[in-house]
Amino acid sequence: RIFKIASIPGDGIGVDITEAAVRVLNTLSKTVGGFEFEFETFDWSSKAYLERGWYMPPDGLEQLKKYDAIYFGAVGWPDVPDHISLWSLILPIRKALNQYVNVRPTRILAGTKSPLSDCSPSDLDWVIVRENSEGEYSGQGGTSHEHSEHAVATEVSIFTQVGIERIMRFAFEMAKSRPRKKLTMVTKSNAQRHGMVLWDRIFYEIAKEYPDVEIDKMLVDAMTVRMVLNPKSLDTIVATNLHADILSDLAAALSGSIGIAPSSNLDPTRKNPSMFEPIHGSAPDIAGQGIANPVGAFWSAAEMVRWLGEEKAADGLMRAIENMTEAGVKTKDLGGEKNTKEVTDAVCTEIERL
Amino acid sequence: RIFKIASIPGDGIGVDITEAAVRVLNTLSKTVGGFEFEFETFDWSSKAYLERGWYMPPDGLEQLKKYDAIYFGAVGWPDVPDHISLWSLILPIRKALNQYVNVRPTRILAGTKSPLSDCSPSDLDWVIVRENSEGEYSGQGGTSHEHSEHAVATEVSIFTQVGIERIMRFAFEMAKSRPRKKLTMVTKSNAQRHGMVLWDRIFYEIAKEYPDVEIDKMLVDAMTVRMVLNPKSLDTIVATNLHADILSDLAAALSGSIGIAPSSNLDPTRKNPSMFEPIHGSAPDIAGQGIANPVGAFWSAAEMVRWLGEEKAADGLMRAIENMTEAGVKTKDLGGEKNTKEVTDAVCTEIERL
Ligand SMILES: CC(C)[C@H](C(=O)O)[C@@H](O)C(=O)O
Ligand SMILES: CC(C)[C@H](C(=O)O)[C@@H](O)C(=O)O
Repeated sequence: RIFKIASIPGDGIGVDITEAAVRVLNTLSKTVGGFEFEFETFDWSSKAYLERGWYMPPDGLEQLKKYDAIYFGAVGWPDVPDHISLWSLILPIRKALNQYVNVRPTRILAGTKSPLSDCSPSDLDWVIVRENSEGEYSGQGGTSHEHSEHAVATEVSIFTQVGIERIMRFAFEMAKSRPRKKLTMVTKSNAQRHGMVLWDRIFYEIAKEYPDVEIDKMLVDAMTVRMVLNPKSLDTIVATNLHADILSDLAAALSGSIGIAPSSNLDPTRKNPSMFEPIHGSAPDIAGQGIANPVGAFWSAAEMVRWLGEEKAADGLMRAIENMTEAGVKTKDLGGEKNTKEVTDAVCTEIERL
Repeated sequence: RIFKIASIPGDGIGVDITEAAVRVLNTLSKTVGGFEFEFETFDWSSKAYLERGWYMPPDGLEQLKKYDAIYFGAVGWPDVPDHISLWSLILPIRKALNQYVNVRPTRILAGTKSPLSDCSPSDLDWVIVRENSEGEYSGQGGTSHEHSEHAVATEVSIFTQVGIERIMRFAFEMAKSRPRKKLTMVTKSNAQRHGMVLWDRIFYEIAKEYPDVEIDKMLVDAMTVRMVLNPKSLDTIVATNLHADILSDLAAALSGSIGIAPSSNLDPTRKNPSMFEPIHGSAPDIAGQGIANPVGAFWSAAEMVRWLGEEKAADGLMRAIENMTEAGVKTKDLGGEKNTKEVTDAVCTEIERL
């Protein structure tokens, strides 16, 4: 099988880690056999934007639809306001390609540790299911009386029955597929009494369809406390676009580093390609130094391989990553001293040994 | 001087810890001398609501205006939807009394420790300045097509020039008054491009008035990572109503327990009474057992005493609290085995020893 992959390295360390991920994916397909990748690289970056004035061409989203999957590095660069870069690239892709789920697993990889003193690897094994198409990221709102002393700006979060139902069903299915069958729903329905209350209600409605899934409900503020002080009590988590954005960064930090965390932007209907990207940003402070941690990129690549149906290869890649971290081959953020290339070489060697 | 205090114990452990705080405040005034408290207790609770159908009487907010300060326990009870209880009590008070700042200091108290393995008491000393009057808590929004398959609900966040300017000025003054003079501004202006962008812009404008304050800007998701992995790099933090709500709970957890964290809802114009409350909730799971940690309530009481102008007494109360925790008198959440009454007795003894 040949998988056509659109690769969008983007900005900063996105470029380094995408290159690393492509090498690893090619090594994987060669070693495991039975499938191959055909990569097409799109230079939709902030650098390009600054030169020519656009990120994607007008038919960019249409072009992407022709691929089996999208691999994304990172977007954002100091010379472009973040809301311009993100709303020109990553957010329209998520929305237009109906990638209404963002799956963010978190656990402590072999040979790495949590910054929490009382947290062993078996205590932290979460999957955050993030609503990826509406809510606080709907883009609605505006500004009146701009640049006057009575300026007023709004951010409008939109929550729909359909949008909430489909993310809840996905989350329940995810919870059901995991050994502990536990789903924690996060909201802020005490302070936000419209959309958040609808979110709560639909959660309890859909819960009736899944009597074998154990459920509970948390307020987003209290959730951070529970993640820090009682990580073991959590398993699968479902939250809104913004809440899950925040909680998944926190989760990554608690598992050791933002540099290892993967994410999958999924269209569960499979009518459009899904997109895979590490959750870290473009990290301008370390860009171009060749020291970025590529593990989040590799883990995202593994999730892509799994989504494409090559389960065995995906498991193999994860094993290769953890064999490597266990052997102490790690970048600085994980307490090691290797650079991006050394880690990439090491993973390729581990893959060849599988 | 006599300070008239409106005391609203509210629900669950709010009742226990308010009682404890009142005892401690009376002991403090007796010991230090020069001021006295006159408490009036308001039974504006969920229990009362369930019996009679209302929390505050129609002139409740007017009544509160006659006091020098308000001491608040906690509100929220399983039999009342949270958005009803909160929008009937705590949120209207914050708004109607112009308490547009919520100050949330966090540090590791003597004799207690952070759940982070690599975090000594001097590494974590933050003040979170929370916008308390608008933003995500504006209450605007609604639901259309309710209970139909195409229901749509909105949450509308409102940000105003005046609202942002005043919280920024307060935050800069706070930063300036602290030894490190550092202010970190938190936002999510990459995804939310209207109100959040206004927030960013005003921050940089006001910053010009404070050349001696060192500033930086964080996205709320990345901020959680920094709090966990680099607590030492932070000092004063300013954030929106929702972001600061989340970050302050996280901060409390990282300092050891949500049970110690205080908050001050301030009207800096002093035209209305300010309100002091621990940041924890009513904790139905441990309510009525006499085991709640009253330290957050005592710390909030100390902040009230300070706001009322009795600096020396406030410092004394903080010293008494830390003499006690240092001596190992702690509730379970802090690794001790004392109950609410024992901790309260111990603090009163420490106050008398000052
Ligand atoms: C880059 C940004 C838009 C993005 C988000 O907020 O979704 C990032 O933080 C993430 O978590 O994927
Ligand atoms: C009770 C609730 C409305 C409140 C808030 O969200 O402001 C609480 O979480 C807090 O932090 O004071």
